[in-house]
Amino acid sequence: MSKQNNQILKNTNAKILDEFNASVMFDKELYAQDIKGSIAHSQMLFEQGILSKEDKEAIHKGLLQVKQEIESGEFEFKIEHEDIHMAVESRLTEIVGEAGKRLHTARSRNDQVATDFRLYVQDKNISIKQQIKELINTFVDVASKHTTTLIPGMTHLQHAQPINFGYHLLAYANMFKRDYERFESSYERNNFSPLGSAALAGTPHDINRDSTCSQLGFYSPTTHAMDTVSDRDFALEILFNISTAVMHISRISEELVTWSSYEFQFVRMSDEYATTSSIMPQKKNPDVPELLRGKTGRVYGNLISLFTVMKGLPLAYNKDTQEDKEGVFDSVKTIEVSLAILNEVIKTMIVNKDKMYNACKIGHLSATDLADYLVQKQNMPFRTAYYITKDVVATANELNKDISELTIEEIRKSNEQIANIDEEILNYLDLEASMNARNSFGGTSTKQTNLQIEVLKNWLESK
Amino acid sequence: MSKQNNQILKNTNAKILDEFNASVMFDKELYAQDIKGSIAHSQMLFEQGILSKEDKEAIHKGLLQVKQEIESGEFEFKIEHEDIHMAVESRLTEIVGEAGKRLHTARSRNDQVATDFRLYVQDKNISIKQQIKELINTFVDVASKHTTTLIPGMTHLQHAQPINFGYHLLAYANMFKRDYERFESSYERNNFSPLGSAALAGTPHDINRDSTCSQLGFYSPTTHAMDTVSDRDFALEILFNISTAVMHISRISEELVTWSSYEFQFVRMSDEYATTSSIMPQKKNPDVPELLRGKTGRVYGNLISLFTVMKGLPLAYNKDTQEDKEGVFDSVKTIEVSLAILNEVIKTMIVNKDKMYNACKIGHLSATDLADYLVQKQNMPFRTAYYITKDVVATANELNKDISELTIEEIRKSNEQIANIDEEILNYLDLEASMNARNSFGGTSTKQTNLQIEVLKNWLESK
Amino acid sequence: MSKQNNQILKNTNAKILDEFNASVMFDKELYAQDIKGSIAHSQMLFEQGILSKEDKEAIHKGLLQVKQEIESGEFEFKIEHEDIHMAVESRLTEIVGEAGKRLHTARSRNDQVATDFRLYVQDKNISIKQQIKELINTFVDVASKHTTTLIPGMTHLQHAQPINFGYHLLAYANMFKRDYERFESSYERNNFSPLGSAALAGTPHDINRDSTCSQLGFYSPTTHAMDTVSDRDFALEILFNISTAVMHISRISEELVTWSSYEFQFVRMSDEYATTSSIMPQKKNPDVPELLRGKTGRVYGNLISLFTVMKGLPLAYNKDTQEDKEGVFDSVKTIEVSLAILNEVIKTMIVNKDKMYNACKIGHLSATDLADYLVQKQNMPFRTAYYITKDVVATANELNKDISELTIEEIRKSNEQIANIDEEILNYLDLEASMNARNSFGGTSTKQTNLQIEVLKNWLESK
Amino acid sequence: MSKQNNQILKNTNAKILDEFNASVMFDKELYAQDIKGSIAHSQMLFEQGILSKEDKEAIHKGLLQVKQEIESGEFEFKIEHEDIHMAVESRLTEIVGEAGKRLHTARSRNDQVATDFRLYVQDKNISIKQQIKELINTFVDVASKHTTTLIPGMTHLQHAQPINFGYHLLAYANMFKRDYERFESSYERNNFSPLGSAALAGTPHDINRDSTCSQLGFYSPTTHAMDTVSDRDFALEILFNISTAVMHISRISEELVTWSSYEFQFVRMSDEYATTSSIMPQKKNPDVPELLRGKTGRVYGNLISLFTVMKGLPLAYNKDTQEDKEGVFDSVKTIEVSLAILNEVIKTMIVNKDKMYNACKIGHLSATDLADYLVQKQNMPFRTAYYITKDVVATANELNKDISELTIEEIRKSNEQIANIDEEILNYLDLEASMNARNSFGGTSTKQTNLQIEVLKNWLESK
Repeated sequence: MSKQNNQILKNTNAKILDEFNASVMFDKELYAQDIKGSIAHSQMLFEQGILSKEDKEAIHKGLLQVKQEIESGEFEFKIEHEDIHMAVESRLTEIVGEAGKRLHTARSRNDQVATDFRLYVQDKNISIKQQIKELINTFVDVASKHTTTLIPGMTHLQHAQPINFGYHLLAYANMFKRDYERFESSYERNNFSPLGSAALAGTPHDINRDSTCSQLGFYSPTTHAMDTVSDRDFALEILFNISTAVMHISRISEELVTWSSYEFQFVRMSDEYATTSSIMPQKKNPDVPELLRGKTGRVYGNLISLFTVMKGLPLAYNKDTQEDKEGVFDSVKTIEVSLAILNEVIKTMIVNKDKMYNACKIGHLSATDLADYLVQKQNMPFRTAYYITKDVVATANELNKDISELTIEEIRKSNEQIANIDEEILNYLDLEASMNARNSFGGTSTKQTNLQIEVLKNWLESK
Repeated sequence: MSKQNNQILKNTNAKILDEFNASVMFDKELYAQDIKGSIAHSQMLFEQGILSKEDKEAIHKGLLQVKQEIESGEFEFKIEHEDIHMAVESRLTEIVGEAGKRLHTARSRNDQVATDFRLYVQDKNISIKQQIKELINTFVDVASKHTTTLIPGMTHLQHAQPINFGYHLLAYANMFKRDYERFESSYERNNFSPLGSAALAGTPHDINRDSTCSQLGFYSPTTHAMDTVSDRDFALEILFNISTAVMHISRISEELVTWSSYEFQFVRMSDEYATTSSIMPQKKNPDVPELLRGKTGRVYGNLISLFTVMKGLPLAYNKDTQEDKEGVFDSVKTIEVSLAILNEVIKTMIVNKDKMYNACKIGHLSATDLADYLVQKQNMPFRTAYYITKDVVATANELNKDISELTIEEIRKSNEQIANIDEEILNYLDLEASMNARNSFGGTSTKQTNLQIEVLKNWLESK
Repeated sequence: MSKQNNQILKNTNAKILDEFNASVMFDKELYAQDIKGSIAHSQMLFEQGILSKEDKEAIHKGLLQVKQEIESGEFEFKIEHEDIHMAVESRLTEIVGEAGKRLHTARSRNDQVATDFRLYVQDKNISIKQQIKELINTFVDVASKHTTTLIPGMTHLQHAQPINFGYHLLAYANMFKRDYERFESSYERNNFSPLGSAALAGTPHDINRDSTCSQLGFYSPTTHAMDTVSDRDFALEILFNISTAVMHISRISEELVTWSSYEFQFVRMSDEYATTSSIMPQKKNPDVPELLRGKTGRVYGNLISLFTVMKGLPLAYNKDTQEDKEGVFDSVKTIEVSLAILNEVIKTMIVNKDKMYNACKIGHLSATDLADYLVQKQNMPFRTAYYITKDVVATANELNKDISELTIEEIRKSNEQIANIDEEILNYLDLEASMNARNSFGGTSTKQTNLQIEVLKNWLESK
Repeated sequence: MSKQNNQILKNTNAKILDEFNASVMFDKELYAQDIKGSIAHSQMLFEQGILSKEDKEAIHKGLLQVKQEIESGEFEFKIEHEDIHMAVESRLTEIVGEAGKRLHTARSRNDQVATDFRLYVQDKNISIKQQIKELINTFVDVASKHTTTLIPGMTHLQHAQPINFGYHLLAYANMFKRDYERFESSYERNNFSPLGSAALAGTPHDINRDSTCSQLGFYSPTTHAMDTVSDRDFALEILFNISTAVMHISRISEELVTWSSYEFQFVRMSDEYATTSSIMPQKKNPDVPELLRGKTGRVYGNLISLFTVMKGLPLAYNKDTQEDKEGVFDSVKTIEVSLAILNEVIKTMIVNKDKMYNACKIGHLSATDLADYLVQKQNMPFRTAYYITKDVVATANELNKDISELTIEEIRKSNEQIANIDEEILNYLDLEASMNARNSFGGTSTKQTNLQIEVLKNWLESK
């Protein structure tokens, strides 16, 4: 190979390598956190007498200028900067000269990464929580309009017992409430300041970690530098918490897709949230819930990715850890948009009460009520009542009726053990009565549903 | 096909199907929780006047007998029982007759499953926490013997700065402390009683969920039946928490394997924790940490398994959820044995201080101290000090010495900007001094390490 | 601690450790492969003059006795055996004495593990292929009975175009055909004999790997010992192939569950494959397809488990790899039972043609046919035809009719561009005609469906 | 809320929704495949008399112009385009008018997506294969320079037996060869043309799928439209194949990191492939292999993502599937850059033969040779030889020598069973002799290594 070609090849390889090594094209997402951290660090250096007032002020002014340049789109990120930390620092030094170089005193890229990334995750723990709260609010709102709207409660996608639709929606409010609590708990468990850990084992400089800590809004400094620079538990936690929340989103999405089918027609997506086909002009597709459901894949993937990266890593920092951020950014964006969109989908969906009610008349939804009646009023063992009920269901099937539509004679003839059953049983087999009979704590009766709405509203107000 | 063959085939298929459907062969793990739940439920039924005193007492006595039969190995689990709930109930009915059939009043298999499984997970949250506490204690113990034992602190598996070995071990104590907190937090977030949710929407019976709740040690009943019977967040949480803990185990294991190599020889596994080769009589293999490291696979796999199962499931109970338990049982057993064994490995490992110390003399570990000295004492910008230090390192390399072994003249000649550097710099380049210089909060100095030990001891006592 | 307690503790730990290290309790699954490998190895040693005829014969006889003891249940596996290889060898030595000890000549546990495991996986590649073939056959059989049974072809779970039910089922036949090909291809790619790799780098003994290779049914010996003892690609492949097949199973299962709902009622599981509720006597639950769908979790998990184990493992053998087998055994058992059961489910499901047909009359399934007609016969651009069709659909909706039920006048009035459309358009809107119009290669017309059946039948015969 | 605010909110939501639904910002990656597919489709329409010559030519010219606009960076992708197909088609229509609208005749977005994506994956199957071939070539090249360079062959990261370094590298050549074969096999299994499947069930138009198929380089058209539009097996396969290849990369990377440590010093990364520390001027970090190792996370994640998306999807197309591409693009880019970089790393790494050789003198690497000698020459059972060898190793340890350094007297004294062992044993204990003694097929002897190099070279030439 000629010398010249050799040089070209070398340059090409160098370029590929630089792009491979550099993280700036994705970790620029952390610019605000990086600048915030540098302001806190330089302020502390000044307080400790390590940095002069002039230098500190130059640095602060310079950093705010860098921030402004980034936010206005003026700032050009380049591969040569390697990462956001170098990008900010090198621009700072262009602006303020020598002082900029002093900023790195008593600090390492390792604790800078750890600090920026943790600040980002903590910011997101808060904002996602807020979005979840709004979504719960929406579920509660819509639910409160449907506490008497009958719908078949299902297990195994089979009609089981009549419930009200508000109650069904509140199940999701409860799931998302747990999600909220997980983000909250993770915030609390990880709200400690990495800054001051230095490369891996602290620094000989007389720094004050409490100062940077309080400037950055952490509770207190982390207690072990080496653990801190290699700790990504907080990132795994947000990936897990997002996965769980998106799993819940996938469940309501599945239901929305099913309910939107011609066969169910329980709900219809509002026009903005349904799309048409490029070849079939008559179709309205529930694309949005389908896509929400499909998003589960990427957030699960991001979780397993970081777990894979962390497996078997020796202490302290290893470059593998550079792979920690893109997945978190992606999962965060995914849940942000998913929560926003689900919120609108639920708000705007069109509920078809008639279809829901008619469906309740299929499948003998109040069959359990007969069994329960026999246990409660006639003191039968449950297993006996269960078999008698089976006979009544068989009668209904023969007559092509729902159990709620049987006459008292038809019931009495079904099984000799209930040949004299009181007429009041008819009240028990009524669908609305059946729903309201489930009045135990946590049950579906309108009364309990309203109580659950109250509990959630109080909780929302307390947050 | 002849009729007879047809029948045989049908029977074979039936058998395969029964085995496919049945969960009793693995959910028998929950026998104690199932019986505990049934005792609580029947006690409540009695309190509410739904069950007579005689029946209640017969049931309690019967259930205790079943428990005793299971624990003595007398009880034979059969596929026909389908699941642990039917296994217990059917044996109970054999023992106590009609009364046994009344036990199922106001209860469904769905809330029984939910209750048993949650009780199991909560039990394990507590016992695993306890094991982690013991492991932290061991790390603290061993660390406290090595607060002055020098070892190269590494990043990228390269010597970086001198630290003490106790400090290195405490990084793990801190990781496991976060694990402890996660199990604790999950326990708190999920300690609510599913019992009384019934099939999916509560029950018309006049039950008292507070009674069963307090009998079972939960804080209060869950607030939404439909959510409750389909909620597996608590199971996902324990799978995640175990994954994170085992990831930490994989990291110390990786280090133990590396440190056990002929090249490092920093530690040696005690004889029980190293095995020999079937073909190479001279070998001692660190099988135990390798296997600990390999266990990461299964616990990550179990996490992704349950996430996969839960994706897109409509409300309420679906049979898919039967797939929730085996992975949890497996992850629980894995972490139980892993924690027990790691605990012993750490306790019994043989530390080779000499090898650790000699390693510190390779790689110019105190180079950063020179840079820091120039910044602190000579007020240089860090970036300048950094480049001077590079020159001194180059000098050392030429002389085939470690930077800590240079004379003052050799240092002064390295770069003209330090031609007059004070002799005191030699104190800064000393390895032990270098370690102790990192005295910032969270740093590696013996003083800070001792402080960290105190903090951890106090925390351990508080738990 | 007293000396005595100390000893007890030590013994307890030793027991835990032995259980932790030992694999015999799961790798006993490989007993047949292990014995087969040992017979081949000793035969080769004899052929090479390394083993005497007497020793060889004693070993063969002894091994067959061990096999018989295992298969009769006589053989007791003990933790002390560590693994299946030691279990077999130690029992062999009990039976045949000194000769048994000679069996390990020129062989290491590492290549034994590699050989046994690969033999197992290859056996399963073949048997799973066979099961898949049977399943495809079932799909083809059932499909051939439904090539004129109309059902709405769906996208987004919305009615799209009329297809025949046989055609729908053949989609699965095609998926499983690809699965078959993957197992086949993996078999071909990995059918090389590990035996003779020894510990990691071959052996000084004058062995003949071709002999053991051909005895064991492999194509030729692997070409690199070190690669061979650490290669688990073949295991990853079967885990992936199973995952893909089970993913396909999860798709048909999802459809069976949806089709079994009261709203669809397209199919009904035969009684053996539906279960009843413990509390709701009227229910028939499609538990079997639900559980089939839920099995996806564990097989995905097993795949990610082994990938995690293998990440970053240095050469050659590491104990981590002991974690390779349980997941494979579990995935293999899962797919074996899943294929067997799905086969029966498909064979025995009850198809409700009426419900399927009636569903076709909802959703203007032949709307595309109108658009296609306009393009074909009137030479309109597709996009124009699309918008005209939208108008006709709107007319149908106003009249509360399906597009297939419109009169020629109603159609003509919908949009002035088709005010004179020929009456023949009515033939195009007919549902059966619409299905048969899709007669392009791979299309749904009965003719094409029959062709596809022929293709599959020929393929099945060729296998 | 005021009407105006309401409108703003609605617009914001609409924008978020459009971005959520649109795929154009990532699927523009498929522009070349999309245009290629459209050219083939329009050519076929023309051949079939469905499209006029003028229209066909206008379309072809227009498509080439669109392609040129995209490649020059002139083309502006907008969210409104939704996806690459609409982006291309709408620009085409701008350029060529009415003719552009005729392009969509007898085609659906569903089969367009399926075609474009499959073309992309097939292109990548080929190009990745090519890169793997180059990498194997590099391994063979470097290996051929080290067929007599002694290095300790390791198991459990412990010295086991002396091997040559070339042999060690060839293990990876063999792994990557299997990777090559997997990409090849996947290409073969999936090289069928989706085009002509239409929305889900074929088309009434008189298309010729063989024409588009051969224009696009596929073997033949797929045989079932509905399967085709929902099939993503080919995408799962490339994700799996990449995962396996990257897993192999993670293994060599782990070894490079370990070998680069001060303790090993077996190799050194060339300066371009090692980076320095921002705080520790003396450090050279093996960042590149660390980052290569860390990449494992994302490719495993992408695999599990798509598997998650596909789980339980009903037929035929669902919007969830839109989530199929980004992960594939990401994994493809990851392996492309990883293979390129690893290739350079291996080419340029600096091998320290002295360190490797010296390491061979630690750990009694030729101990197995003694055992083998006793078996071969003295006809001892292996187990007996094993225990004698243990005694000799013990003697060496006492004398602080390696077994290869013992005198014949020292050996003879170790165990009375070898009190008269022939002096020739010393030749067997020599390290190079020991390496060369492993001369069985696939073994490490220089002879066998050279043979393996030949085999690989021939294979490379055949590809």
